[in-house]
Amino acid sequence: MSLDRSRCLELDASDPLAAMRDRFVLPEGVVYLDGNSLGALPVGVAERLQRTIRDEWGIMLIRSWNEADWASLPRRVGDRVAKLIGAPPGCVVVCESTSINLYKATMGAAALRPERGHILTDSGNFPTDMYVMRGVAAHHGLDLVVVEPGAVESAIGEDTAVVALTQVDYRTGRRHDMHRLTRLAHDAGAIAVWDLAHSAGAFPVALGDCDVDLAVGCGYKYLNGGPGAPAFVYVAPRLLPRMSNPITGWFGHARPFDFSLEFDPAPGIDRLRVGTPHVLSLAALDEALDAFEDVDLVELRRKSERLTGLFIELVANRLGAQFELITPIDPAHRGSHVSLRHDHAYAVIQALIDRGVIGDFRAPDVARFGFAPLYTRFVDVWDAVATMADVMSTAAWKRPEFHVRKAVT
Amino acid sequence: MSLDRSRCLELDASDPLAAMRDRFVLPEGVVYLDGNSLGALPVGVAERLQRTIRDEWGIMLIRSWNEADWASLPRRVGDRVAKLIGAPPGCVVVCESTSINLYKATMGAAALRPERGHILTDSGNFPTDMYVMRGVAAHHGLDLVVVEPGAVESAIGEDTAVVALTQVDYRTGRRHDMHRLTRLAHDAGAIAVWDLAHSAGAFPVALGDCDVDLAVGCGYKYLNGGPGAPAFVYVAPRLLPRMSNPITGWFGHARPFDFSLEFDPAPGIDRLRVGTPHVLSLAALDEALDAFEDVDLVELRRKSERLTGLFIELVANRLGAQFELITPIDPAHRGSHVSLRHDHAYAVIQALIDRGVIGDFRAPDVARFGFAPLYTRFVDVWDAVATMADVMSTAAWKRPEFHVRKAVT
Repeated sequence: MSLDRSRCLELDASDPLAAMRDRFVLPEGVVYLDGNSLGALPVGVAERLQRTIRDEWGIMLIRSWNEADWASLPRRVGDRVAKLIGAPPGCVVVCESTSINLYKATMGAAALRPERGHILTDSGNFPTDMYVMRGVAAHHGLDLVVVEPGAVESAIGEDTAVVALTQVDYRTGRRHDMHRLTRLAHDAGAIAVWDLAHSAGAFPVALGDCDVDLAVGCGYKYLNGGPGAPAFVYVAPRLLPRMSNPITGWFGHARPFDFSLEFDPAPGIDRLRVGTPHVLSLAALDEALDAFEDVDLVELRRKSERLTGLFIELVANRLGAQFELITPIDPAHRGSHVSLRHDHAYAVIQALIDRGVIGDFRAPDVARFGFAPLYTRFVDVWDAVATMADVMSTAAWKRPEFHVRKAVT
Repeated sequence: MSLDRSRCLELDASDPLAAMRDRFVLPEGVVYLDGNSLGALPVGVAERLQRTIRDEWGIMLIRSWNEADWASLPRRVGDRVAKLIGAPPGCVVVCESTSINLYKATMGAAALRPERGHILTDSGNFPTDMYVMRGVAAHHGLDLVVVEPGAVESAIGEDTAVVALTQVDYRTGRRHDMHRLTRLAHDAGAIAVWDLAHSAGAFPVALGDCDVDLAVGCGYKYLNGGPGAPAFVYVAPRLLPRMSNPITGWFGHARPFDFSLEFDPAPGIDRLRVGTPHVLSLAALDEALDAFEDVDLVELRRKSERLTGLFIELVANRLGAQFELITPIDPAHRGSHVSLRHDHAYAVIQALIDRGVIGDFRAPDVARFGFAPLYTRFVDVWDAVATMADVMSTAAWKRPEFHVRKAVT
């Protein structure tokens, strides 16, 4: 069957997840391929925040700590995230940012292996992970060993305290084999910490089946929790009793409202908490997770593979000579975004945004396109590539205004 | 002139800040004396969040990082907080929780005095401050020295690395002399860190005039930023170039969007940031600060002293035998809340809440009443004490349901 726009419309018509798009508020005239950076707005979030603000805060005021159970929101939302990442209830909590949770996770992990010499990561890891871990390594007198993504496996050794990786490379879209690398880490006696920033909500993650020790992830990408949504942190149940949090705040206490002067860590996942929960941001994420209700994550992954596969195929057919694909062709080795290298990737992305196709640029030369399977259609992929073909054939990206760097890209 | 309800109404009629109450949405039939725990809802916040969610997030999506300048919100809101705490622009940033900011501040402070032996605080400090500092002290191999509030002055010595205090005691309302203690800390070569949780927005704080080194504070008490609003952290301009952040995240980087693998701290206050800003919670606090526009902080303090003074006087007149006042009588030595000791303080507070007078309980036996001067009226003070008198004379607090402890009090 020939691959054309009407074929893409047919694919949408037969897509079992097609109706999920109605769970989002999407702007007219935009093909949004940046849900891996900021997820789209789910239906109901704006209304939920109105209730949280006007009723819970405005009317019930302080009483909402009990009446609306604000204090347990981090754990309640955590249990909802747990279902998406293959974790049992009671071992995920939603709080603060991915960076801060990674700090807690890797500080705690390093403390569990005091006799060892280094934290191992790869050069494709997200910069904030690098920065955080450099600080953590310095605190513990450890080295931070950074190898190429393909060399992680052979670099795990007897001196490795912690293997800390992001499952899906934010730049290339390459996906690590979490099961295998976690097993190798354990075989070597190391702790495995995974950053699920580009995983959670994009495909089924199997933290429990992979026997992962610790994980963190982002609330505002595929989970659609809104700009700067709180992040999550997972601790394997078997590790919880021994897991320490370097930042000992009152919400990590076993009995925060006893106001005792001695710190007694909460017995469960609450020990990873620190300060007062950001209720407004948490309420938004809580509501956003409704978009995943009754979604079959295997189906979600299947659609993601087909969307990214379609994009790769269309780009190869129509634009192959002009972009270098840096995302693995084998779907088993990629996440839910696809990246293309181009000397003028920044300007190309600006030209596309100008025409309503929103992807993003990652320095120095990567054009990145995310395919959030809950709301991206096959016809969106077609339209995006058609627009790209037009931008390239008309050299629209050469216009000077597309080369002016904005503050955030 | 006799002190009765009509006199209180007169005081409200001549109150230069009376109109400020219209800047808040307050529930009918409630006397809210807990703004020191959760500030009331300012007018405009609900609408602002609608715009942030529907327009900035929903329609503009990822483009709002540039169009709405989300990335600089922590610093922009920080500059607004700076005006309320006597700090120049560019040295306050709003992010995360008070606990996490205290961790950063005291970790950084301790690193500036590596040759010294202890962190000094007092036993009236808030529990989370204690917990955080215990962790920080352990990291740096320091002792945490805890003395009675009145003994801080004499405990500052040559071995003191950091003096870390909360200006207003959350339980007693006692206020430290920030100017004097900061000078004594400096005379001894120590770093002074102040927690302004019960100060910012309640009265003018003079960080600059007191030459304070570092400060943190809460966004959801007198600043009215909403439940779990992000907190702030201040670094004196003279210290900024040497100040380190133990949690090195991408938003603390000089150029976050260069995605460099090496950490290069931002030259200014942004170095205290860590992860992606919680945009929704920040937008709420930003809007809430409008309530302080054109408010004379000296006038604000004057009203606060009169409100707390009136409460103390009325309680003494009508209930003196039944409660022990634990807040200093001298207004110069107190903040904006008043605390009373009673063996059954918990049940008394529940009985008051049942009748629409909302104060709070602090373990083990303290009934606490906050007087947020922007929206608390003199007649509210009268009505609160009248209700207390009724609750006590009828022994309403003895009803069994008022003795059942709720999760959060």
